[in-house]
Amino acid sequence: MPQAQTARQQARPRGLGGDHVEGRQAVRELLRAGKRRVHEVLICEDAQSAATLAEIVDLAGDRRVPVREITRRKLDEAALTAAPQGVIAKAAAVTPVPLEDLAKPARGTPPLVVATDGVTDPGNLGAILRTAEAAGATGAVLTSHRSASLTPATVKAAAGAIEYLPIAHVGGLPAALAQLRELGLWAVGLDGNASDGLDELRVGDQPMVLVLGAEGCGLSPLVERRCDHVLSIPVMGRIDSLNVAAAAAVALYDIARARRRSGSERTAPAGGTH
Amino acid sequence: MPQAQTARQQARPRGLGGDHVEGRQAVRELLRAGKRRVHEVLICEDAQSAATLAEIVDLAGDRRVPVREITRRKLDEAALTAAPQGVIAKAAAVTPVPLEDLAKPARGTPPLVVATDGVTDPGNLGAILRTAEAAGATGAVLTSHRSASLTPATVKAAAGAIEYLPIAHVGGLPAALAQLRELGLWAVGLDGNASDGLDELRVGDQPMVLVLGAEGCGLSPLVERRCDHVLSIPVMGRIDSLNVAAAAAVALYDIARARRRSGSERTAPAGGTH
Repeated sequence: MPQAQTARQQARPRGLGGDHVEGRQAVRELLRAGKRRVHEVLICEDAQSAATLAEIVDLAGDRRVPVREITRRKLDEAALTAAPQGVIAKAAAVTPVPLEDLAKPARGTPPLVVATDGVTDPGNLGAILRTAEAAGATGAVLTSHRSASLTPATVKAAAGAIEYLPIAHVGGLPAALAQLRELGLWAVGLDGNASDGLDELRVGDQPMVLVLGAEGCGLSPLVERRCDHVLSIPVMGRIDSLNVAAAAAVALYDIARARRRSGSERTAPAGGTH
Repeated sequence: MPQAQTARQQARPRGLGGDHVEGRQAVRELLRAGKRRVHEVLICEDAQSAATLAEIVDLAGDRRVPVREITRRKLDEAALTAAPQGVIAKAAAVTPVPLEDLAKPARGTPPLVVATDGVTDPGNLGAILRTAEAAGATGAVLTSHRSASLTPATVKAAAGAIEYLPIAHVGGLPAALAQLRELGLWAVGLDGNASDGLDELRVGDQPMVLVLGAEGCGLSPLVERRCDHVLSIPVMGRIDSLNVAAAAAVALYDIARARRRSGSERTAPAGGTH
Protein backbone atom coordinates (compact mmCIF):
# COMPACT_ATOMS: atom_id res chain seq x y z
CA MET A 1 0.00 0.00 0.00
CA PRO A 2 2.33 2.76 -1.13
CA GLN A 3 -0.38 5.41 -0.71
CA ALA A 4 -1.03 4.53 2.94
CA GLN A 5 2.71 4.58 3.57
CA THR A 6 3.03 8.02 2.03
CA ALA A 7 0.20 9.31 4.20
CA ARG A 8 1.87 7.91 7.30
CA GLN A 9 5.22 9.42 6.36
CA GLN A 10 3.59 12.81 5.84
CA ALA A 11 1.81 12.56 9.19
CA ARG A 12 5.07 11.89 11.02
CA PRO A 13 6.46 15.05 12.57
CA ARG A 14 9.42 16.26 10.53
CA GLY A 15 11.91 16.40 13.35
CA LEU A 16 14.99 14.66 14.62
CA GLY A 17 13.11 11.61 15.88
CA GLY A 18 14.60 9.63 18.72
CA ASP A 19 11.26 9.03 20.46
CA HIS A 20 11.59 5.22 20.36
CA VAL A 21 14.56 4.16 22.49
CA GLU A 22 15.81 0.55 22.65
CA GLY A 23 18.80 -1.01 24.32
CA ARG A 24 20.02 -0.93 27.90
CA GLN A 25 22.61 1.83 27.64
CA ALA A 26 20.37 4.05 25.51
CA VAL A 27 17.42 3.76 27.91
CA ARG A 28 19.59 4.18 30.99
CA GLU A 29 21.15 7.39 29.68
CA LEU A 30 17.72 8.68 28.57
CA LEU A 31 16.57 8.39 32.19
CA ARG A 32 19.86 9.52 33.74
CA ALA A 33 20.06 12.67 31.62
CA GLY A 34 16.43 13.56 32.37
CA LYS A 35 16.33 16.08 29.54
CA ARG A 36 13.22 14.89 27.75
CA ARG A 37 9.88 13.54 28.86
CA VAL A 38 9.78 9.73 29.09
CA HIS A 39 6.25 8.36 28.66
CA GLU A 40 6.80 4.71 29.48
CA VAL A 41 9.44 2.01 29.89
CA LEU A 42 8.62 -1.50 28.65
CA ILE A 43 10.75 -4.17 30.22
CA CYS A 44 10.97 -7.89 29.69
CA GLU A 45 9.60 -9.69 32.75
CA ASP A 46 12.23 -12.45 32.65
CA ALA A 47 15.29 -10.24 32.09
CA GLN A 48 15.42 -8.08 35.18
CA SER A 49 18.35 -9.84 36.73
CA ALA A 50 20.75 -7.83 34.60
CA ALA A 51 22.29 -5.02 36.65
CA THR A 52 21.61 -2.38 34.01
CA LEU A 53 17.93 -3.31 33.83
CA ALA A 54 17.60 -3.10 37.62
CA GLU A 55 19.25 0.35 37.43
CA ILE A 56 16.76 1.36 34.73
CA VAL A 57 13.82 0.34 36.94
CA ASP A 58 15.26 2.37 39.83
CA LEU A 59 15.87 5.43 37.65
CA ALA A 60 12.34 5.19 36.22
CA GLY A 61 10.99 5.06 39.78
CA ASP A 62 12.97 8.16 40.74
CA ARG A 63 11.59 10.01 37.71
CA ARG A 64 8.04 8.71 38.14
CA VAL A 65 8.05 7.05 34.72
CA PRO A 66 5.65 4.10 34.47
CA VAL A 67 7.40 0.76 33.98
CA ARG A 68 5.40 -2.01 32.33
CA GLU A 69 6.60 -5.60 32.52
CA ILE A 70 5.70 -7.59 29.43
CA THR A 71 6.58 -10.99 28.02
CA ARG A 72 9.67 -11.40 25.88
CA ARG A 73 7.44 -12.18 22.91
CA LYS A 74 5.49 -8.94 23.30
CA LEU A 75 8.68 -6.95 23.77
CA ASP A 76 10.19 -8.42 20.64
CA GLU A 77 6.98 -7.57 18.79
CA ALA A 78 7.19 -3.97 19.95
CA ALA A 79 10.90 -3.77 19.10
CA LEU A 80 12.15 -1.92 16.03
CA THR A 81 15.77 -3.17 16.17
CA ALA A 82 17.12 -6.70 16.06
CA ALA A 83 18.27 -6.74 19.69
CA PRO A 84 16.34 -4.50 22.12
CA GLN A 85 18.18 -6.14 25.06
CA GLY A 86 14.98 -6.51 27.06
CA VAL A 87 14.00 -2.84 27.27
CA ILE A 88 12.19 -0.18 25.23
CA ALA A 89 11.32 3.38 26.24
CA LYS A 90 8.86 5.78 24.64
CA ALA A 91 9.88 9.39 25.00
CA ALA A 92 9.43 12.85 23.55
CA ALA A 93 11.49 13.38 20.39
CA VAL A 94 14.95 14.93 20.66
CA THR A 95 14.79 18.72 20.43
CA PRO A 96 17.32 20.19 18.00
CA VAL A 97 19.35 23.26 18.96
CA PRO A 98 19.91 26.28 16.70
CA LEU A 99 23.01 25.87 14.53
CA GLU A 100 24.68 28.99 15.94
CA ASP A 101 24.60 27.44 19.45
CA LEU A 102 27.12 24.87 18.23
CA ALA A 103 29.67 27.61 17.50
CA LYS A 104 29.99 28.58 21.16
CA PRO A 105 32.74 27.20 23.39
CA ALA A 106 31.43 24.44 25.68
CA ARG A 107 32.90 23.53 29.06
CA GLY A 108 35.83 25.86 28.39
CA THR A 109 36.97 24.15 25.19
CA PRO A 110 36.71 25.45 21.64
CA PRO A 111 33.73 23.96 19.77
CA LEU A 112 34.21 20.59 18.07
CA VAL A 113 31.23 19.80 15.87
CA VAL A 114 30.63 16.63 13.87
CA ALA A 115 28.63 16.82 10.65
CA THR A 116 27.65 13.93 8.41
CA ASP A 117 27.26 14.28 4.66
CA GLY A 118 24.97 11.48 3.53
CA VAL A 119 25.80 8.80 6.12
CA THR A 120 22.77 6.57 5.52
CA ASP A 121 23.49 3.50 7.65
CA PRO A 122 21.72 3.99 11.00
CA GLY A 123 24.28 1.88 12.88
CA ASN A 124 27.15 3.98 11.52
CA LEU A 125 25.39 7.24 12.36
CA GLY A 126 24.69 6.07 15.92
CA ALA A 127 28.27 4.86 16.36
CA ILE A 128 29.58 8.23 15.15
CA LEU A 129 27.42 10.13 17.65
CA ARG A 130 28.52 7.80 20.48
CA THR A 131 32.20 8.19 19.71
CA ALA A 132 31.82 11.94 19.19
CA GLU A 133 30.29 12.41 22.63
CA ALA A 134 32.94 10.20 24.23
CA ALA A 135 35.77 12.06 22.50
CA GLY A 136 34.54 15.39 23.83
CA ALA A 137 32.74 16.76 20.76
CA THR A 138 30.46 19.66 21.67
CA GLY A 139 27.76 19.17 19.05
CA ALA A 140 26.56 17.47 15.87
CA VAL A 141 24.83 18.56 12.70
CA LEU A 142 22.35 16.28 10.98
CA THR A 143 20.70 17.08 7.68
CA SER A 144 17.08 16.34 6.87
CA HIS A 145 18.29 15.43 3.38
CA ARG A 146 20.40 12.41 2.35
CA SER A 147 21.34 11.34 5.91
CA ALA A 148 19.79 9.00 8.43
CA SER A 149 17.92 10.74 11.25
CA LEU A 150 17.53 9.43 14.79
CA THR A 151 15.85 6.12 13.91
CA PRO A 152 15.54 3.40 16.57
CA ALA A 153 18.69 1.69 15.21
CA THR A 154 20.64 4.96 15.35
CA VAL A 155 19.41 5.71 18.86
CA LYS A 156 20.41 2.25 20.06
CA ALA A 157 23.89 2.45 18.49
CA ALA A 158 24.38 5.91 19.99
CA ALA A 159 24.08 4.27 23.44
CA GLY A 160 22.82 7.43 25.13
CA ALA A 161 25.05 9.98 23.39
CA ILE A 162 22.03 11.80 21.93
CA GLU A 163 20.93 12.72 25.45
CA TYR A 164 24.06 14.82 25.98
CA LEU A 165 25.34 15.91 22.56
CA PRO A 166 23.49 19.01 21.28
CA ILE A 167 22.26 18.33 17.73
CA ALA A 168 21.33 20.90 15.10
CA HIS A 169 19.05 19.87 12.27
CA VAL A 170 19.64 21.67 8.97
CA GLY A 171 18.15 21.52 5.51
CA GLY A 172 21.44 21.30 3.66
CA LEU A 173 25.02 20.88 4.77
CA PRO A 174 26.79 23.35 2.42
CA ALA A 175 24.83 26.31 3.81
CA ALA A 176 25.34 25.09 7.39
CA LEU A 177 29.10 24.82 6.84
CA ALA A 178 29.19 28.32 5.39
CA GLN A 179 27.41 29.61 8.50
CA LEU A 180 29.72 27.75 10.90
CA ARG A 181 32.79 29.08 9.06
CA GLU A 182 31.43 32.62 9.39
CA LEU A 183 31.09 31.94 13.11
CA GLY A 184 34.80 31.11 13.28
CA LEU A 185 34.98 27.32 12.87
CA TRP A 186 37.41 25.59 10.55
CA ALA A 187 35.66 23.06 8.31
CA VAL A 188 37.72 19.87 7.97
CA GLY A 189 36.43 17.09 5.76
CA LEU A 190 37.31 13.42 5.95
CA ASP A 191 37.40 11.57 2.64
CA GLY A 192 39.20 8.36 1.76
CA ASN A 193 40.37 9.88 -1.54
CA ALA A 194 42.04 12.97 -0.07
CA SER A 195 45.80 13.10 -0.66
CA ASP A 196 46.63 14.71 2.70
CA GLY A 197 46.62 12.34 5.67
CA LEU A 198 45.29 13.00 9.15
CA ASP A 199 48.83 13.88 10.32
CA GLU A 200 48.48 17.09 8.29
CA LEU A 201 45.67 18.34 10.52
CA ARG A 202 46.90 21.58 12.07
CA VAL A 203 43.72 22.99 13.58
CA GLY A 204 42.66 20.15 15.89
CA ASP A 205 42.84 22.37 18.95
CA GLN A 206 40.92 25.20 17.32
CA PRO A 207 37.17 25.68 16.81
CA MET A 208 36.25 23.23 14.08
CA VAL A 209 33.61 21.14 12.38
CA LEU A 210 34.62 17.66 11.22
CA VAL A 211 32.67 16.63 8.14
CA LEU A 212 32.26 12.91 7.45
CA GLY A 213 31.49 11.69 3.95
CA ALA A 214 29.02 8.99 3.00
CA GLU A 215 29.88 5.30 3.00
CA GLY A 216 31.31 4.47 -0.38
CA CYS A 217 31.15 7.80 -2.18
CA GLY A 218 32.74 10.24 0.28
CA LEU A 219 32.05 13.96 0.44
CA SER A 220 29.72 15.51 -2.11
CA PRO A 221 31.40 18.14 -4.35
CA LEU A 222 29.37 21.01 -2.88
CA VAL A 223 30.33 20.04 0.66
CA GLU A 224 33.96 19.49 -0.25
CA ARG A 225 34.11 23.02 -1.67
CA ARG A 226 33.00 24.40 1.70
CA CYS A 227 35.81 22.62 3.56
CA ASP A 228 39.04 24.43 4.45
CA HIS A 229 40.95 21.15 4.36
CA VAL A 230 40.07 17.61 3.32
CA LEU A 231 42.04 14.74 4.87
CA SER A 232 42.09 10.98 4.67
CA ILE A 233 42.89 8.35 7.28
CA PRO A 234 45.91 6.50 5.86
CA VAL A 235 45.21 2.89 4.93
CA MET A 236 48.26 0.66 5.37
CA GLY A 237 46.74 -2.68 4.35
CA ARG A 238 45.28 -4.03 1.14
CA ILE A 239 41.64 -3.05 1.47
CA ASP A 240 40.59 0.32 0.08
CA SER A 241 39.00 2.15 2.91
CA LEU A 242 37.87 2.35 6.50
CA ASN A 243 34.29 2.19 7.64
CA VAL A 244 33.03 5.76 8.19
CA ALA A 245 32.43 5.18 11.92
CA ALA A 246 35.96 3.81 12.35
CA ALA A 247 37.40 6.76 10.42
CA ALA A 248 35.42 9.12 12.63
CA ALA A 249 36.76 7.43 15.78
CA VAL A 250 40.38 7.74 14.63
CA ALA A 251 39.98 11.40 13.66
CA LEU A 252 38.01 12.41 16.76
CA TYR A 253 40.57 10.90 19.13
CA ASP A 254 43.38 12.52 17.17
CA ILE A 255 41.65 15.86 17.65
CA ALA A 256 41.05 15.07 21.34
CA ARG A 257 44.79 14.44 21.74
CA ALA A 258 45.65 17.75 20.06
CA ARG A 259 43.27 19.51 22.43
CA ARG A 260 44.65 17.72 25.49
CA ARG A 261 48.20 18.74 24.58
CA SER A 262 47.25 22.29 23.79
CA GLY A 263 45.26 22.46 27.06
CA SER A 264 48.17 21.16 29.12
CA GLU A 265 50.48 23.69 27.46
CA ARG A 266 48.04 26.45 28.38
CA THR A 267 47.76 25.30 31.99
CA ALA A 268 51.42 24.25 32.47
CA PRO A 269 53.31 26.29 35.07
CA ALA A 270 54.91 28.98 32.95
CA GLY A 271 57.65 30.50 35.07
CA GLY A 272 55.27 31.71 37.75
CA THR A 273 53.23 34.07 35.57
CA HIS A 274 50.11 32.67 37.21
CA MET B 1 12.13 -27.64 14.86
CA PRO B 2 14.89 -27.46 17.45
CA GLN B 3 16.01 -31.00 16.70
CA ALA B 4 16.53 -30.35 12.98
CA GLN B 5 18.46 -27.18 13.82
CA THR B 6 20.74 -29.02 16.17
CA ALA B 7 21.43 -31.66 13.51
CA ARG B 8 22.27 -28.93 10.99
CA GLN B 9 24.57 -27.18 13.46
CA GLN B 10 26.37 -30.42 14.17
CA ALA B 11 26.76 -31.12 10.43
CA ARG B 12 28.38 -27.72 9.86
CA PRO B 13 32.17 -27.98 9.70
CA ARG B 14 33.73 -26.59 12.86
CA GLY B 15 35.99 -24.05 11.23
CA LEU B 16 36.37 -20.36 10.74
CA GLY B 17 33.47 -20.10 8.31
CA GLY B 18 33.42 -17.29 5.80
CA ASP B 19 32.09 -19.41 2.94
CA HIS B 20 29.03 -17.21 2.39
CA VAL B 21 30.15 -13.75 1.24
CA GLU B 22 27.74 -10.85 0.79
CA GLY B 23 28.28 -7.20 -0.03
CA ARG B 24 30.11 -5.49 -2.86
CA GLN B 25 33.43 -4.80 -1.16
CA ALA B 26 33.59 -8.23 0.46
CA VAL B 27 32.91 -10.07 -2.82
CA ARG B 28 35.27 -7.82 -4.81
CA GLU B 29 38.16 -8.46 -2.43
CA LEU B 30 37.38 -12.20 -2.33
CA LEU B 31 37.89 -12.27 -6.09
CA ARG B 32 40.79 -9.79 -6.16
CA ALA B 33 42.76 -11.67 -3.53
CA GLY B 34 42.22 -15.02 -5.28
CA LYS B 35 43.29 -16.95 -2.19
CA ARG B 36 40.35 -19.32 -1.86
CA ARG B 37 38.18 -21.16 -4.32
CA VAL B 38 35.03 -19.28 -5.32
CA HIS B 39 32.24 -21.60 -6.42
CA GLU B 40 29.72 -19.11 -7.73
CA VAL B 41 28.73 -15.45 -7.75
CA LEU B 42 25.03 -14.58 -7.60
CA ILE B 43 24.26 -11.13 -8.85
CA CYS B 44 21.07 -9.15 -9.03
CA GLU B 45 20.02 -8.75 -12.68
CA ASP B 46 18.83 -5.16 -12.26
CA ALA B 47 21.79 -3.86 -10.24
CA GLN B 48 24.70 -4.23 -12.59
CA SER B 49 25.00 -0.55 -13.37
CA ALA B 50 26.98 0.00 -10.16
CA ALA B 51 30.70 0.26 -10.94
CA THR B 52 31.71 -2.20 -8.20
CA LEU B 53 29.29 -4.83 -9.50
CA ALA B 54 30.65 -4.45 -13.04
CA GLU B 55 34.15 -4.89 -11.61
CA ILE B 56 33.00 -8.02 -9.78
CA VAL B 57 31.64 -9.50 -13.03
CA ASP B 58 34.97 -8.76 -14.77
CA LEU B 59 37.02 -10.28 -11.94
CA ALA B 60 34.82 -13.39 -11.89
CA GLY B 61 35.35 -13.74 -15.64
CA ASP B 62 39.14 -13.49 -15.21
CA ARG B 63 39.03 -16.17 -12.53
CA ARG B 64 36.56 -18.39 -14.41
CA VAL B 65 34.03 -18.20 -11.62
CA PRO B 66 30.44 -18.76 -12.83
CA VAL B 67 28.22 -15.69 -12.46
CA ARG B 68 24.49 -16.28 -12.20
CA GLU B 69 22.06 -13.40 -12.69
CA ILE B 70 18.94 -13.76 -10.56
CA THR B 71 16.00 -11.54 -9.66
CA ARG B 72 16.24 -9.20 -6.72
CA ARG B 73 13.60 -11.25 -4.93
CA LYS B 74 15.62 -14.46 -5.30
CA LEU B 75 18.82 -12.72 -4.22
CA ASP B 76 17.13 -11.34 -1.14
CA GLU B 77 15.82 -14.83 -0.36
CA ALA B 78 19.35 -16.25 -0.61
CA ALA B 79 20.80 -13.43 1.48
CA LEU B 80 21.80 -13.94 5.11
CA THR B 81 22.39 -10.27 5.96
CA ALA B 82 19.96 -7.35 5.83
CA ALA B 83 21.66 -5.64 2.86
CA PRO B 84 23.56 -7.91 0.43
CA GLN B 85 24.02 -4.94 -1.95
CA GLY B 86 23.00 -7.03 -4.96
CA VAL B 87 25.73 -9.67 -4.76
CA ILE B 88 26.47 -12.96 -2.98
CA ALA B 89 29.42 -15.32 -3.48
CA LYS B 90 29.79 -18.92 -2.38
CA ALA B 91 33.38 -19.85 -1.61
CA ALA B 92 35.58 -22.29 0.27
CA ALA B 93 35.80 -21.45 3.97
CA VAL B 94 38.66 -19.30 5.23
CA THR B 95 41.70 -21.43 6.15
CA PRO B 96 43.16 -20.57 9.54
CA VAL B 97 46.94 -20.25 9.99
CA PRO B 98 48.91 -21.78 12.90
CA LEU B 99 49.13 -19.42 15.86
CA GLU B 100 52.95 -19.34 15.76
CA ASP B 101 52.83 -17.91 12.22
CA LEU B 102 51.36 -14.74 13.68
CA ALA B 103 54.48 -14.16 15.78
CA LYS B 104 56.70 -13.64 12.73
CA PRO B 105 57.47 -10.18 11.37
CA ALA B 106 55.41 -9.40 8.27
CA ARG B 107 56.46 -7.05 5.47
CA GLY B 108 59.44 -5.91 7.55
CA THR B 109 57.39 -4.74 10.55
CA PRO B 110 57.12 -6.33 13.98
CA PRO B 111 53.97 -8.43 14.36
CA LEU B 112 50.78 -6.66 15.41
CA VAL B 113 48.08 -9.17 16.22
CA VAL B 114 44.48 -8.45 17.21
CA ALA B 115 42.66 -10.88 19.51
CA THR B 116 39.06 -10.67 20.64
CA ASP B 117 37.89 -11.92 24.02
CA GLY B 118 34.18 -12.64 23.70
CA VAL B 119 33.19 -10.06 21.07
CA THR B 120 29.83 -11.53 20.11
CA ASP B 121 28.31 -8.94 17.81
CA PRO B 122 29.11 -9.99 14.22
CA GLY B 123 29.10 -6.41 12.95
CA ASN B 124 31.61 -5.35 15.62
CA LEU B 125 33.87 -8.31 14.89
CA GLY B 126 33.83 -7.59 11.15
CA ALA B 127 34.49 -3.90 11.74
CA ILE B 128 37.46 -4.77 13.99
CA LEU B 129 38.98 -7.04 11.32
CA ARG B 130 38.48 -4.36 8.65
CA THR B 131 40.12 -1.64 10.71
CA ALA B 132 42.91 -3.99 11.81
CA GLU B 133 43.84 -4.81 8.21
CA ALA B 134 43.67 -1.14 7.22
CA ALA B 135 45.85 -0.08 10.17
CA GLY B 136 48.56 -2.56 9.20
CA ALA B 137 47.88 -5.39 11.64
CA THR B 138 49.63 -8.58 10.61
CA GLY B 139 47.15 -11.12 11.98
CA ALA B 140 44.13 -11.89 14.13
CA VAL B 141 43.21 -14.55 16.68
CA LEU B 142 39.63 -15.78 16.95
CA THR B 143 38.44 -18.23 19.56
CA SER B 144 36.01 -21.03 18.91
CA HIS B 145 34.57 -20.25 22.32
CA ARG B 146 32.60 -17.14 23.38
CA SER B 147 33.36 -15.11 20.25
CA ALA B 148 31.58 -14.72 16.93
CA SER B 149 33.20 -16.59 14.04
CA LEU B 150 33.16 -15.50 10.41
CA THR B 151 29.39 -15.38 9.96
CA PRO B 152 27.90 -13.73 6.87
CA ALA B 153 27.34 -10.50 8.84
CA THR B 154 30.96 -10.51 10.04
CA VAL B 155 32.27 -11.21 6.55
CA LYS B 156 30.22 -8.37 5.11
CA ALA B 157 31.34 -5.88 7.79
CA ALA B 158 34.96 -6.93 7.28
CA ALA B 159 34.66 -5.65 3.68
CA GLY B 160 37.34 -8.00 2.34
CA ALA B 161 39.82 -7.79 5.22
CA ILE B 162 39.53 -11.54 5.89
CA GLU B 163 41.06 -12.22 2.46
CA TYR B 164 44.34 -10.57 3.49
CA LEU B 165 44.61 -10.76 7.28
CA PRO B 166 45.95 -14.15 8.45
CA ILE B 167 43.64 -15.54 11.12
CA ALA B 168 44.48 -18.17 13.75
CA HIS B 169 41.65 -20.12 15.34
CA VAL B 170 42.26 -21.19 18.93
CA GLY B 171 40.31 -23.06 21.57
CA GLY B 172 40.90 -20.57 24.36
CA LEU B 173 42.46 -17.14 24.49
CA PRO B 174 44.47 -17.40 27.76
CA ALA B 175 46.60 -20.28 26.39
CA ALA B 176 47.02 -18.51 23.05
CA LEU B 177 48.22 -15.34 24.80
CA ALA B 178 50.68 -17.36 26.86
CA GLN B 179 52.07 -18.86 23.65
CA LEU B 180 52.33 -15.50 21.88
CA ARG B 181 54.11 -13.99 24.89
CA GLU B 182 56.60 -16.87 24.84
CA LEU B 183 57.19 -16.06 21.19
CA GLY B 184 58.14 -12.50 22.14
CA LEU B 185 54.92 -10.51 21.81
CA TRP B 186 53.71 -8.05 24.41
CA ALA B 187 50.08 -8.67 25.36
CA VAL B 188 48.18 -5.40 25.74
CA GLY B 189 44.54 -5.49 26.75
CA LEU B 190 41.92 -2.82 26.14
CA ASP B 191 39.27 -2.47 28.83
CA GLY B 192 37.05 0.50 29.61
CA ASN B 193 37.68 0.03 33.34
CA ALA B 194 41.49 0.15 33.20
CA SER B 195 43.02 3.08 35.06
CA ASP B 196 45.88 3.64 32.60
CA GLY B 197 44.93 5.45 29.41
CA LEU B 198 46.09 4.70 25.89
CA ASP B 199 48.76 7.43 26.21
CA GLU B 200 50.58 5.08 28.61
CA LEU B 201 51.19 2.55 25.83
CA ARG B 202 54.97 2.23 25.49
CA VAL B 203 55.30 -0.86 23.29
CA GLY B 204 53.26 0.20 20.25
CA ASP B 205 56.27 -0.17 17.94
CA GLN B 206 57.25 -3.57 19.35
CA PRO B 207 55.85 -7.05 18.62
CA MET B 208 52.48 -7.11 20.28
CA VAL B 209 49.00 -8.57 20.52
CA LEU B 210 46.14 -6.18 21.22
CA VAL B 211 43.37 -7.90 23.16
CA LEU B 212 39.85 -6.49 22.91
CA GLY B 213 37.29 -7.19 25.61
CA ALA B 214 33.66 -8.08 25.06
CA GLU B 215 30.93 -5.47 24.64
CA GLY B 216 29.68 -4.53 28.07
CA CYS B 217 31.79 -6.72 30.32
CA GLY B 218 35.35 -6.13 29.13
CA LEU B 219 38.22 -8.61 29.47
CA SER B 220 37.63 -11.85 31.35
CA PRO B 221 39.78 -12.25 34.52
CA LEU B 222 41.82 -15.12 33.01
CA VAL B 223 42.63 -13.11 29.90
CA GLU B 224 43.41 -9.98 31.89
CA ARG B 225 45.94 -11.94 33.96
CA ARG B 226 47.77 -12.89 30.74
CA CYS B 227 48.13 -9.27 29.68
CA ASP B 228 51.33 -7.31 30.35
CA HIS B 229 49.38 -4.08 30.41
CA VAL B 230 45.68 -3.20 30.34
CA LEU B 231 44.68 0.22 29.03
CA SER B 232 41.50 2.16 28.47
CA ILE B 233 40.56 4.70 25.84
CA PRO B 234 39.81 7.89 27.80
CA VAL B 235 36.17 8.97 27.67
CA MET B 236 35.78 12.73 27.88
CA GLY B 237 31.99 12.98 27.62
CA ARG B 238 29.12 11.82 29.78
CA ILE B 239 28.50 8.33 28.42
CA ASP B 240 30.37 5.44 30.01
CA SER B 241 32.20 3.73 27.23
CA LEU B 242 33.11 3.43 23.59
CA ASN B 243 31.82 0.76 21.26
CA VAL B 244 34.47 -2.01 21.04
CA ALA B 245 35.02 -1.47 17.31
CA ALA B 246 35.53 2.27 17.85
CA ALA B 247 37.94 1.58 20.73
CA ALA B 248 39.84 -0.85 18.49
CA ALA B 249 40.08 1.77 15.74
CA VAL B 250 41.49 4.40 18.10
CA ALA B 251 44.05 1.99 19.60
CA LEU B 252 45.12 0.45 16.28
CA TYR B 253 45.77 3.84 14.68
CA ASP B 254 47.64 4.96 17.76
CA ILE B 255 49.86 1.91 17.41
CA ALA B 256 50.24 2.55 13.68
CA ARG B 257 51.44 6.07 14.46
CA ALA B 258 54.00 4.76 16.96
CA ARG B 259 55.28 2.34 14.31
CA ARG B 260 55.42 5.03 11.64
CA ARG B 261 57.47 7.29 13.93
CA SER B 262 59.76 4.51 15.04
CA GLY B 263 60.21 3.43 11.39
CA SER B 264 61.09 6.93 10.26
CA GLU B 265 63.62 7.21 13.11
CA ARG B 266 65.18 3.94 11.97
CA THR B 267 65.38 5.06 8.34
CA ALA B 268 66.23 8.71 8.98
CA PRO B 269 69.71 9.76 7.80
CA ALA B 270 71.82 9.25 10.95
CA GLY B 271 75.03 11.21 10.36
CA GLY B 272 76.09 9.11 7.37
CA THR B 273 76.40 5.79 9.19
CA HIS B 274 74.48 4.18 6.35
